[in-house]
Amino acid sequence: MATHKDVKKVVLAYSGGLDTSIILKWLQTELGAEVVTFTADLGQGDELGPARKKAELMGIPDKNIYIEDVREEFVRDFVFPMFRANAVYEGVYLLGTSIARPLISKRLVEIAEETGADAIAHGATGKGNDQVRFELSAYALNPDIKVIAPWRDWTLKSRTELIAFAEAHQIPIPKDKRGEAPFSVDANLLHSSSEGKVLEDPNEEAPEYVYQRSVSPEDAPDKATEIEIGFKAGDAVSINGETLSPATILARLNDLGRDNGIGRLDLVENRFVGMKSRGVYETPGGTILLTAHRAMESITLDRGAAHLKDELMPRYAELIYNGFWFSPEREMLQAAIDHSQREVEGTVRLKLYKGNVIVTGRASPKSLYDDALVTFEDDRGAYDQKDAAGFIRLNALRLRTLAARNRNS
Amino acid sequence: MATHKDVKKVVLAYSGGLDTSIILKWLQTELGAEVVTFTADLGQGDELGPARKKAELMGIPDKNIYIEDVREEFVRDFVFPMFRANAVYEGVYLLGTSIARPLISKRLVEIAEETGADAIAHGATGKGNDQVRFELSAYALNPDIKVIAPWRDWTLKSRTELIAFAEAHQIPIPKDKRGEAPFSVDANLLHSSSEGKVLEDPNEEAPEYVYQRSVSPEDAPDKATEIEIGFKAGDAVSINGETLSPATILARLNDLGRDNGIGRLDLVENRFVGMKSRGVYETPGGTILLTAHRAMESITLDRGAAHLKDELMPRYAELIYNGFWFSPEREMLQAAIDHSQREVEGTVRLKLYKGNVIVTGRASPKSLYDDALVTFEDDRGAYDQKDAAGFIRLNALRLRTLAARNRNS
Amino acid sequence: MATHKDVKKVVLAYSGGLDTSIILKWLQTELGAEVVTFTADLGQGDELGPARKKAELMGIPDKNIYIEDVREEFVRDFVFPMFRANAVYEGVYLLGTSIARPLISKRLVEIAEETGADAIAHGATGKGNDQVRFELSAYALNPDIKVIAPWRDWTLKSRTELIAFAEAHQIPIPKDKRGEAPFSVDANLLHSSSEGKVLEDPNEEAPEYVYQRSVSPEDAPDKATEIEIGFKAGDAVSINGETLSPATILARLNDLGRDNGIGRLDLVENRFVGMKSRGVYETPGGTILLTAHRAMESITLDRGAAHLKDELMPRYAELIYNGFWFSPEREMLQAAIDHSQREVEGTVRLKLYKGNVIVTGRASPKSLYDDALVTFEDDRGAYDQKDAAGFIRLNALRLRTLAARNRNS
Amino acid sequence: MATHKDVKKVVLAYSGGLDTSIILKWLQTELGAEVVTFTADLGQGDELGPARKKAELMGIPDKNIYIEDVREEFVRDFVFPMFRANAVYEGVYLLGTSIARPLISKRLVEIAEETGADAIAHGATGKGNDQVRFELSAYALNPDIKVIAPWRDWTLKSRTELIAFAEAHQIPIPKDKRGEAPFSVDANLLHSSSEGKVLEDPNEEAPEYVYQRSVSPEDAPDKATEIEIGFKAGDAVSINGETLSPATILARLNDLGRDNGIGRLDLVENRFVGMKSRGVYETPGGTILLTAHRAMESITLDRGAAHLKDELMPRYAELIYNGFWFSPEREMLQAAIDHSQREVEGTVRLKLYKGNVIVTGRASPKSLYDDALVTFEDDRGAYDQKDAAGFIRLNALRLRTLAARNRNS
Repeated sequence: MATHKDVKKVVLAYSGGLDTSIILKWLQTELGAEVVTFTADLGQGDELGPARKKAELMGIPDKNIYIEDVREEFVRDFVFPMFRANAVYEGVYLLGTSIARPLISKRLVEIAEETGADAIAHGATGKGNDQVRFELSAYALNPDIKVIAPWRDWTLKSRTELIAFAEAHQIPIPKDKRGEAPFSVDANLLHSSSEGKVLEDPNEEAPEYVYQRSVSPEDAPDKATEIEIGFKAGDAVSINGETLSPATILARLNDLGRDNGIGRLDLVENRFVGMKSRGVYETPGGTILLTAHRAMESITLDRGAAHLKDELMPRYAELIYNGFWFSPEREMLQAAIDHSQREVEGTVRLKLYKGNVIVTGRASPKSLYDDALVTFEDDRGAYDQKDAAGFIRLNALRLRTLAARNRNS
Repeated sequence: MATHKDVKKVVLAYSGGLDTSIILKWLQTELGAEVVTFTADLGQGDELGPARKKAELMGIPDKNIYIEDVREEFVRDFVFPMFRANAVYEGVYLLGTSIARPLISKRLVEIAEETGADAIAHGATGKGNDQVRFELSAYALNPDIKVIAPWRDWTLKSRTELIAFAEAHQIPIPKDKRGEAPFSVDANLLHSSSEGKVLEDPNEEAPEYVYQRSVSPEDAPDKATEIEIGFKAGDAVSINGETLSPATILARLNDLGRDNGIGRLDLVENRFVGMKSRGVYETPGGTILLTAHRAMESITLDRGAAHLKDELMPRYAELIYNGFWFSPEREMLQAAIDHSQREVEGTVRLKLYKGNVIVTGRASPKSLYDDALVTFEDDRGAYDQKDAAGFIRLNALRLRTLAARNRNS
Repeated sequence: MATHKDVKKVVLAYSGGLDTSIILKWLQTELGAEVVTFTADLGQGDELGPARKKAELMGIPDKNIYIEDVREEFVRDFVFPMFRANAVYEGVYLLGTSIARPLISKRLVEIAEETGADAIAHGATGKGNDQVRFELSAYALNPDIKVIAPWRDWTLKSRTELIAFAEAHQIPIPKDKRGEAPFSVDANLLHSSSEGKVLEDPNEEAPEYVYQRSVSPEDAPDKATEIEIGFKAGDAVSINGETLSPATILARLNDLGRDNGIGRLDLVENRFVGMKSRGVYETPGGTILLTAHRAMESITLDRGAAHLKDELMPRYAELIYNGFWFSPEREMLQAAIDHSQREVEGTVRLKLYKGNVIVTGRASPKSLYDDALVTFEDDRGAYDQKDAAGFIRLNALRLRTLAARNRNS
Repeated sequence: MATHKDVKKVVLAYSGGLDTSIILKWLQTELGAEVVTFTADLGQGDELGPARKKAELMGIPDKNIYIEDVREEFVRDFVFPMFRANAVYEGVYLLGTSIARPLISKRLVEIAEETGADAIAHGATGKGNDQVRFELSAYALNPDIKVIAPWRDWTLKSRTELIAFAEAHQIPIPKDKRGEAPFSVDANLLHSSSEGKVLEDPNEEAPEYVYQRSVSPEDAPDKATEIEIGFKAGDAVSINGETLSPATILARLNDLGRDNGIGRLDLVENRFVGMKSRGVYETPGGTILLTAHRAMESITLDRGAAHLKDELMPRYAELIYNGFWFSPEREMLQAAIDHSQREVEGTVRLKLYKGNVIVTGRASPKSLYDDALVTFEDDRGAYDQKDAAGFIRLNALRLRTLAARNRNS
């Protein structure tokens, strides 16, 4: 489907690596399209300098090379809003890959509009979720944009053919890329994910060398690290009393998590495109943040708001996983969630120890926790225990009516 | 409300401890009621012998003393059905106290019917959730039963008055019960909970002596323990290949969890009666079981079923927490959940290490995980990547229509 | 419970009728409280003049008599936001009584604060929902307010005793109020409700004389009335091209509905306090509005937004029915709903005929309906039917995997 | 996609009409496949005899012609289970087309297995929902079945080309089929739907000639018809005291509805494939049934069950609309719904009048409606109004805590 013969100019999500370099060349040679490259620093840990150099080598003029540090935008406008929802997919996954895709698509579309390009291109394969996330985001932002997904379109069918194409076009091939990688990696400031090959048997333990950004709990220090995270309007704003920018906070939490063996996850998940896949994720800072945020909410959020959030969360997480960040329903849920977060502020104290994130204290000027109500001792009238009798009796009324009916019939 | 002057015979949930002994005497003296005692072994760890002796001492005839080991029923009919749902309250609490109450009420009501009693009595206070759980369950099973909750009704207002009442009625008072306890405890085979007094400030770390049934992660062994749990129809049926009864499985997992510092939780939760309270829970075996069950589901449960379960879960957990175990809506949800569990079988391998429960493998004769679909390598036609283009385009159609509308207006 | 001996000044929701006049006197004589009366025109159809006169007769000084026309506020801030959600309780009830209570409580609390009163009082009984709605609203707005509900507190046990009390205190008794009314009525601009006595047997048809504000479909004209309603941001703003205020629109629709036999409902509903009750409701304008609003949404609302709204609606309606208008969870849902309504604008044409509200057309500058996509004829590339094959195949993938598993096992 | 060159034998959903006759021939000539025809009487109102004759004329041997009356199975196993849920899509649509597709697919797949066919074929286009429903059902029942959807695959691009193909192959062409139909129709025992062409402008009223199976309210009799429907386990079992089979009940209700102008619906809906479409539906019997079922539930269903059903319904309806009848999640919801229906029995009395379905009575041996609880008169202790004070106070507790917090901060 989708012959892209009429594409004239295309903005490519370009990492500088071998695969997207091959794509770049393919776009130039097969489609005859002018290529604009977009390389983003999302905190994946790679230097961006080489990406520029490679783009230049492949003949991309300077005005067509976009290299940007989007870490602050990523954490502030995507990661933090998502954490306000305590979003986890299928009970455990913190959505580290999912949440980065909409931002990349947003910039691709914006750059396409700035440069007059009629298409964007990405390097995701036809089996995964990322193609969906890239493309739904792009279409939601520009209904007329064309999207090129070379992995679905080209005729290169194996690693060998790819390498041959690269060689034929003088694309430099790093030594370790000649063969199949034992697993593939995606990374950004929130997490790294690994999947494929050595991980394909879900009954085999993931080998230690798969892990990218955390020591194992076994190798973590024998002594706990204590920290305090400050919150404002549902977002983390400080660590140990020091006010920090969103990206800086997440980076610091990543360091703390990595050192203490926090945030590893090995799971089998359900992809939007229909199959189960096995992944290994590392989300050190995010794992700390989730626990801290829930603890902060536990004293500042009303029960009604908290329970509604818990009920909406699986749907919200599914939307993000499936690529519907830029959709009316995600925005509606976000409006509801954000409304609940206005008074979620204060501090949470934590102990980080060998994979554990242990809450040791929470305090807030907006606390709803009331000693007087809960105490076993004299509460000086804050709560009349006799009220409970009526409360229970009316809650039971329908159940009693039902029991009487069932007895009689 | 509730003068109980006309009560003739009452079945008391009797632990043998000081508080329920005072209640027993109060029922005899203030209400002039004949008392039947019911003492259940739910795995709380207390011997039941003393309860019989004390009841006898207080003049309860043998035929009115019911002492029962209900551990298997508890795990089989209450704990395991709940774990099929992956139920957690407010994101973290495994409902260890909540799930025991309906069983106790069920037996109280049944014994009342056997012995011709017109009322039941329990020792829960007027501030907590347990009164609600006891009473809703009782009313749902017998609409005409009377429920006596002495803590809400009597005029004993302080520990001193209680002790005075005990002394006046020759109830033996253990030395450590003369003053206020530094915290109160509830326990059963699933968990122990601690709350009150030394735990009342949510910004103070729980002291180590509060913990009842687990070593701290710091004190756990430096070497991981590896186990394999077998599942059938969503329930654990074996450990390391040994088929075991429900209660035995949970007891073994408790031992494993306790030794490895697993299952501690310190949280502020929202009670059904309206206030926030802080509790410390230990659920060693349950914590292992939850992780294992999710891992088992991850390869055997279809995505549609899994996501529906995740969406229904918060409501299901809330119902149990609030005391609505015996309600049509809990039973409806259970019917849906149980329907999904028929093929949840196989084995899950885990590493237990200093508070961590780490999945290292899952296998099932009913696995839905399909290598061929997910592989990066040649899948021999299992999946046509071109399908993804149509899939995405139709998923995007409404978003594109929306984007076009929004651009034009 | 609730001795109100210390109450000094109380704001009473005062209709001017016999019952609230008795309450007024009771507050004066039994509690010795200074009384402030609040009488609101919510569109119930009674004149407010007599209420002032009666209050004066009972010794209320002018400064303590509050009489207000709140119809515009009622429709703008309560009815319309609720209709944005298409809220119906238990599938059919348009919440006409429920939605008026929070507004009354809001004004009671505000007047209490203005006049230095320490309590408010209402005339709802202890069996209904209205007491809950009044009181939850009041407590949510002022946590320290005292609420007096004489029907729950006083010792007047029968109509006879009430009449005797009235006579003893020189309260004028209209002739038709000496006996029991055959049914009781609540009314406001949105609806009237009737319940009790002649309606207590749910197997007896409601007699025609129960209906207050609509002709029967049988008696309605033989010729349809055609109208056009204009919407902006989800709210009705015009009828037949004439821009009107919220209350005026609802009043006009009431007239149109009344004449055409629209909006009658006879149902058995579940009260929050636990029993079933039977009511007869008339919501002529609201019934038209609901149909029109759904039709307006049908061409302007994205599917994702529409379906999310439908899923959230039952909860939203339940919250309003149960009295939780002023709760964080209702506000969260409102934020989500309002977010969806920004482009819900245009016009809907309707035929009103003997109980039927028939949509005959919808048009919008923001329409998402696209002829080109849906046509059976040549769509000039708007939609590629081949996309559907991939769409279906990926949607089917998990089901096929499941079917293969189930066949093999 | 999908070259079907290897298909040897195909079961075609064959109506006997021109379009599926063309498909039949195309399967024979283009694919060279042996064709088995399946023609079902779902209550669409066409005779089946001509279908057999036409199949014979096109060379189908007798053993390959399947003609079946599936009306009872349709209503018993598909329509009635769905009505237990009170399912409506997007607030109004009773899912009449959606619910018939899974049954057809089920028989297609079964016949394929009986006859050794490797494929099935249907006549739905690539723009609609029906292709999705047919195919998801088929794949869910047989993961290896091939599905042929000629409308998506063939090269016939216009009515003219279709007619030419028919003529070239000696397929008889009814006169009225030479040109474009002014709208297209689908029908079965539950409903008829009309869409396309004259209905494509949603701002134009549907012409009267579009309606297939109901008189207009205007043309309906001036006198109401009264009926009584009996229910058992949530399903209708009798009309006016006469016990009838499922299909007979629905047929009778259709007659009653048709005569009284009941069940017309003109709406714009959101298709699963992404666009909005406008349809005109007639569901005379189903509309009566829905109202009756809700009324039956109103006195026999507990509030908890009823509200849970209402919350689950939109999802359930969406699943059916989207074609996921044979999915684990639909079955889970069905299990929950069916659990609730066990005591939904009794009788409902209705007045049918010019488009209106008016409930005039409901009675049940399993009624949960309790006069004593609800009466304004002396209830002899059935309900203690003082209980309401405690009930409200504890429900308000969290709101008061919140209000106090918000005042202080």
